[in-house]
Amino acid sequence: MTFSAEFSVRFGEVDYARVVYYPRFFHYFHQAFEEWFSGALGAPYPELVVKENIGFPTIRAETEFLAPLRYGDRFRVDVELVDIGRTSITMAYTIVRLGDGKVSARATIKNVAIDNDTFKPMRIPDRWRERFERFRSGGGPEAPR
Amino acid sequence: MTFSAEFSVRFGEVDYARVVYYPRFFHYFHQAFEEWFSGALGAPYPELVVKENIGFPTIRAETEFLAPLRYGDRFRVDVELVDIGRTSITMAYTIVRLGDGKVSARATIKNVAIDNDTFKPMRIPDRWRERFERFRSGGGPEAPR
Amino acid sequence: MTFSAEFSVRFGEVDYARVVYYPRFFHYFHQAFEEWFSGALGAPYPELVVKENIGFPTIRAETEFLAPLRYGDRFRVDVELVDIGRTSITMAYTIVRLGDGKVSARATIKNVAIDNDTFKPMRIPDRWRERFERFRSGGGPEAPR
Amino acid sequence: MTFSAEFSVRFGEVDYARVVYYPRFFHYFHQAFEEWFSGALGAPYPELVVKENIGFPTIRAETEFLAPLRYGDRFRVDVELVDIGRTSITMAYTIVRLGDGKVSARATIKNVAIDNDTFKPMRIPDRWRERFERFRSGGGPEAPR
Repeated sequence: MTFSAEFSVRFGEVDYARVVYYPRFFHYFHQAFEEWFSGALGAPYPELVVKENIGFPTIRAETEFLAPLRYGDRFRVDVELVDIGRTSITMAYTIVRLGDGKVSARATIKNVAIDNDTFKPMRIPDRWRERFERFRSGGGPEAPR
Repeated sequence: MTFSAEFSVRFGEVDYARVVYYPRFFHYFHQAFEEWFSGALGAPYPELVVKENIGFPTIRAETEFLAPLRYGDRFRVDVELVDIGRTSITMAYTIVRLGDGKVSARATIKNVAIDNDTFKPMRIPDRWRERFERFRSGGGPEAPR
Repeated sequence: MTFSAEFSVRFGEVDYARVVYYPRFFHYFHQAFEEWFSGALGAPYPELVVKENIGFPTIRAETEFLAPLRYGDRFRVDVELVDIGRTSITMAYTIVRLGDGKVSARATIKNVAIDNDTFKPMRIPDRWRERFERFRSGGGPEAPR
Repeated sequence: MTFSAEFSVRFGEVDYARVVYYPRFFHYFHQAFEEWFSGALGAPYPELVVKENIGFPTIRAETEFLAPLRYGDRFRVDVELVDIGRTSITMAYTIVRLGDGKVSARATIKNVAIDNDTFKPMRIPDRWRERFERFRSGGGPEAPR
């Protein structure tokens, strides 16, 4: 299943070449990751991070940049969950320019579940694993399976 | 007394108009504020914030932007301490372009001492008040007056 | 008349004190300014900046920070146009936390119209002046009065 | 040959988990890339970008995050040039925490030479190819080979 979030390129997000400064693509991926929690899993990311004190730091990222984003461009970030491990999840992101439908960037990003106090990896708690699995198998947040 | 810190405009710090995106001036002011602690007060800001759990959030900022900074520009931030109150300090910042000596921006920024847990204003602790006063009266960090 | 835009505090927008890093408030003001063009004036800011090569850099900002924004907070930026000069406009911004209705920050920001190539101030073109006046007097973008 | 640049983690560069927000690692890589031009190749990056109108956008990045950076951490970015192609260069970056010598992150990043106006890939000009080769083979910027 794919979740999508839409954003616009802001005035201060470009670099001297007048295209989006490439580190900001990772900010876009992270914003889409945050939106995915509230929009697709039915549980906002702050609930996980602030209330349950669990983190999902990135431990690996592989990214291809195919076409630039420019000031004013509107774009979509497609989010897929490609793997659910014992302590980690692996997501795939595709950024598509809405103006011409071109793929701007693709990334595969692996996040590991940690206890925010110790920063040690932890087994993904069952209530989250179930949400991840429900999303991967195509059910929405309310879908009773 | 004036403390100065020097920085360069980075590739990703400009906006579509190819001048520094104005919110980043406040990041420059804050960087200079952080440098002022280690370079002029003899105590790094993380010592205050992390070890002593004190914060100095900004509660007021007045800023004039006089000349743009461009990619590659090297600039100096001059830092002055204009007032020491019971719970707050007021700093003046001047950004000067090193290429032509022109003033790029001026700001007066007021910071209040807080307990980082409660976020309530607190009386500035004496050991910090002394450092602030020593700086204002022209002594360096080690100067015993 | 007041225009409002809503945003959320993102995971990477806080500082070590776990409240929004204050320079980012100015990014929020600018985002609301950009939204105001498309949402209230009926003409996206990129149209002004990219097609007409006009800029509106900030030349003065006065800001008060009253209550912090935290990770996950949803907030509204209220935008008012308080003055239309020959070459400049002055806007007032109020950031309100949607959770408890508290005012987080207030700013008055003056922007001057410039030619993006020369960076010289210019008289605000009539078609933009009319849009600004229509907004100030309470008409929407399509309102023919 | 390896070039190194040192930086500190700033107050506003962490996220809610109080470690550096991972997109900022790419900003650190880019800052080190910019420093590499002036410090190792003897030609500032703005000279390439502004005067010669050549860009080196990132087209691929593979990154591993091994240990977090925290507020106040001082770190070193080691920069190596691992490949020089017809139109691209591939760099390796290693971020090392100066406090304990631990590797925080590793990246392999490929940049393609483009004409900044057309955004089309171009053959790397000889004067830049020579600088790249001199660095890779261990000569400093002034080394006459």
